[in-house]
Amino acid sequence: MENSIVYKSLLYDFYGELLTDKQNSIIDLYYNHDLTLSEISENTGISRQGVYDTLKRAENALDRYEKKLKLVERFSKHNMLIVEVNSKLEKILNSNIDDVKEIRKKLIEIKNIIKKIM
Amino acid sequence: MENSIVYKSLLYDFYGELLTDKQNSIIDLYYNHDLTLSEISENTGISRQGVYDTLKRAENALDRYEKKLKLVERFSKHNMLIVEVNSKLEKILNSNIDDVKEIRKKLIEIKNIIKKIM
Repeated sequence: MENSIVYKSLLYDFYGELLTDKQNSIIDLYYNHDLTLSEISENTGISRQGVYDTLKRAENALDRYEKKLKLVERFSKHNMLIVEVNSKLEKILNSNIDDVKEIRKKLIEIKNIIKKIM
Repeated sequence: MENSIVYKSLLYDFYGELLTDKQNSIIDLYYNHDLTLSEISENTGISRQGVYDTLKRAENALDRYEKKLKLVERFSKHNMLIVEVNSKLEKILNSNIDDVKEIRKKLIEIKNIIKKIM
């Protein structure tokens, strides 16, 4: 997970605004526009090695912010619980349960998950 | 809201780790331990004016982080929706509705709120 592009994009989404303009634009070209290091080099006039170094420094900065703030971690846990609530609701809605007691039992389960989020 | 202690505490909760150690400990004494500026001055050996200046600089830094990252704003919106989901669920559970169709209708409303969070 820590090295996946999804995780890195999340870090960028959360902390990108704290990067320098140069780091920000290079990460944006690399992550969001899928350019290669060479293409970014051609587009920006920065050497390929320079692009690589800036990218690594930016990624290290994003990692340091997450180590300090843990907001991506907090958000991901949150989100997993919301996905769970959603899927449990969907299950009730898609099922043919017509016993109110049973539905209520399932709603209490959902309320207990929501308690963990609040 | 912007000037309330609850809001300031939220900013500190989110971004406190990005402050300097000195800013961090003074804000902690002021927000979480309810000490006055004079008491913090006595406890730390920093002049009352120095404590005030550090506190203001820390608060300005927290404001700048929020202006850039807007994570407290994002989190608060999120949280309001979760509170709404929770109260709608509670209403169903505390009511005497025993018509499955009606419960299903209310669950669809809840699912639509959750969609906004995901």
